[in-house]
Amino acid sequence: MSDGKTGLQLRSLLKKSGELELSLVNVPTPEPADDEVVVRVEATPINPSDLGLLIGAADMSAAKASGTKEMPVITATMPEGAMRMMAARFDQSLPVGNEGAGTVIRTGASDAAKALMGKTVSMIGGAMYTQYRVLKVRDVMELPAGTTAADGASWFVNPLTALGMTETMRRENHKALVHTAAASNLGQMLNKICIKDGIGLVNIVRNKEQADILHKIGAKHVVDSSAPSFMDDLTNALVETGATIAFDAIGGGKLAGQILNAMEVAINKTAKEYSRYGSAVHKQVYIYGSLDTGSIELPRGFGMAWSVGGWLLTYFLQKLPPADFARLRQRVVDELKTTFASNYTQVVSLQEALSLSNIAIYAKRATGEKFLINPNKG
Amino acid sequence: MSDGKTGLQLRSLLKKSGELELSLVNVPTPEPADDEVVVRVEATPINPSDLGLLIGAADMSAAKASGTKEMPVITATMPEGAMRMMAARFDQSLPVGNEGAGTVIRTGASDAAKALMGKTVSMIGGAMYTQYRVLKVRDVMELPAGTTAADGASWFVNPLTALGMTETMRRENHKALVHTAAASNLGQMLNKICIKDGIGLVNIVRNKEQADILHKIGAKHVVDSSAPSFMDDLTNALVETGATIAFDAIGGGKLAGQILNAMEVAINKTAKEYSRYGSAVHKQVYIYGSLDTGSIELPRGFGMAWSVGGWLLTYFLQKLPPADFARLRQRVVDELKTTFASNYTQVVSLQEALSLSNIAIYAKRATGEKFLINPNKG
Repeated sequence: MSDGKTGLQLRSLLKKSGELELSLVNVPTPEPADDEVVVRVEATPINPSDLGLLIGAADMSAAKASGTKEMPVITATMPEGAMRMMAARFDQSLPVGNEGAGTVIRTGASDAAKALMGKTVSMIGGAMYTQYRVLKVRDVMELPAGTTAADGASWFVNPLTALGMTETMRRENHKALVHTAAASNLGQMLNKICIKDGIGLVNIVRNKEQADILHKIGAKHVVDSSAPSFMDDLTNALVETGATIAFDAIGGGKLAGQILNAMEVAINKTAKEYSRYGSAVHKQVYIYGSLDTGSIELPRGFGMAWSVGGWLLTYFLQKLPPADFARLRQRVVDELKTTFASNYTQVVSLQEALSLSNIAIYAKRATGEKFLINPNKG
Repeated sequence: MSDGKTGLQLRSLLKKSGELELSLVNVPTPEPADDEVVVRVEATPINPSDLGLLIGAADMSAAKASGTKEMPVITATMPEGAMRMMAARFDQSLPVGNEGAGTVIRTGASDAAKALMGKTVSMIGGAMYTQYRVLKVRDVMELPAGTTAADGASWFVNPLTALGMTETMRRENHKALVHTAAASNLGQMLNKICIKDGIGLVNIVRNKEQADILHKIGAKHVVDSSAPSFMDDLTNALVETGATIAFDAIGGGKLAGQILNAMEVAINKTAKEYSRYGSAVHKQVYIYGSLDTGSIELPRGFGMAWSVGGWLLTYFLQKLPPADFARLRQRVVDELKTTFASNYTQVVSLQEALSLSNIAIYAKRATGEKFLINPNKG
């Protein structure tokens, strides 16, 4: 397979019976068209957004391994409640992996394609958990000299999500923001952006260890939701920053409502007269993740000027003017080794990504644990 | 008091102790400035939005009456949980009543003011539960000949809320809408608007009697949330109308989430391929009332393209271009006796509005019960 004419690809198959099957298949590499390149994939992260497609809500603690060492097969069961929303993917063997980086090993005939021969490039477009990926020139980005595939693997989802948050904040006329599960790789990037750009950021974390991570990189406002003083701490940080928009990775439970309530109390601390409808300042919580897949519980008591909604990078980018998109992409490349550096706890092969012991770790979606797959790991 | 130099005014006073006191006070009528008129208030409705200020979450079932027949006083207790958000109104004697209608009995010196002498006008601006109200000419609207004060009393809040819903629907690119507590006066107006304008409307009611009210006025899609087939009925109505925006008067509980879920299922019935993030069609629920003051419970399962938020007429009108506001106001006046006709179950004096037996009825905020106050009832 070293000629790149065929390669292994990781697949996720959800059967109508409720059985989820993860496996590797050998696929031929298509010949590149004129404006295409063949990339040997050398680094592709396992992001929370990849896990949604890879394993979804399946119970991986009871997963079973079969197949061979070279071609492992994992089976698990999808809970009945989660099946209803997934009918459209039943019985399709789906490739996985949003983003990655690697080396161009073959190109189409166009000058733009040929110019990339031998270069290290970052990629976006799905199906990255594969050994060889054919992509159009416009979907790859040449990395600066001295940047490895591992440096450039997480160039898109987390960096652009973090930048998308501060962009959304500005476009919707807020002056500071709140972020939850804030010690994640994404959260650390967001802190670096906000420190650099002078934006007030209130970090909500779930324990002291996570708070320490953020204090170490210079975060100013870190509040711990497990502390008895949480609501007071949060309110004080909101008063200090003036944050009226939040990005929440958790979703289920009471946190989104607590944030709205704390915002209302913070705003009313400076209110001059009673408004029966609460403060007229718009309070926004965007939910962009599902670390808690339970119901979102919103108490009332934060007036009528509020909104809670889904936020997805794809939808944000679709609405973003192309010039702004180009500006954000360029910033990521310029700051890939600083602001947007990712930390990985493990680098695994495609086969190792399908080992029960590794799945047990990454399926937890725990802050601080992040896997990088190298599909061509020797 | 027949010269209108002084008059009775209804007041709501929430003491720091948690005691709510409703009473009448005698207030002098200010002399009108050049651009002002003095209106003898003859009709002013008790809307849900007025009850928020008048009694809020106070326990009126344990209210006590004192004072005299002419000057009654009602006292009740505000639950501790509700006090927190009301600190800004403590110990202030507040006038009540958003809208009303009456006869101009004295005017300022400007031509515009003098032209209104003796005319029946509709008014907006608060403090309408009063015998004489001084207002600027721009805050009153002359009613067409043959229109009584009672006809014009509810000219603003309900009609503009109903029109605001269809305007919001169009401005946010939806083609049909959902309304809850749909048999209310407001809901009936909304049906008349939608039938006239050819807009698809899904009415959600809580029992068969309410469904009958709407069928009688020609509503096409009425679903009963107490029926075992509710979710299927709702989904079918959403498929038929294509509604992707809802206006919810209830707020607390599961209804908003049920609507989002049914919208997602309805949209996916025509989806061609699996999207791991759910449908990309934006699903919106606006909560404009608090018939249930409990927590809003939103399950997940409707993708990432969704939003739940507060909707308030005041905020909507603030953002509306003036020409559009003028167009909506004119439509209300033109259709005051048809589309925007209100039904009242009782017409009461200020004193009668403060009788325990009447309070027991209107404090329930029940669909079908609507009070009109005539502060000058003889």
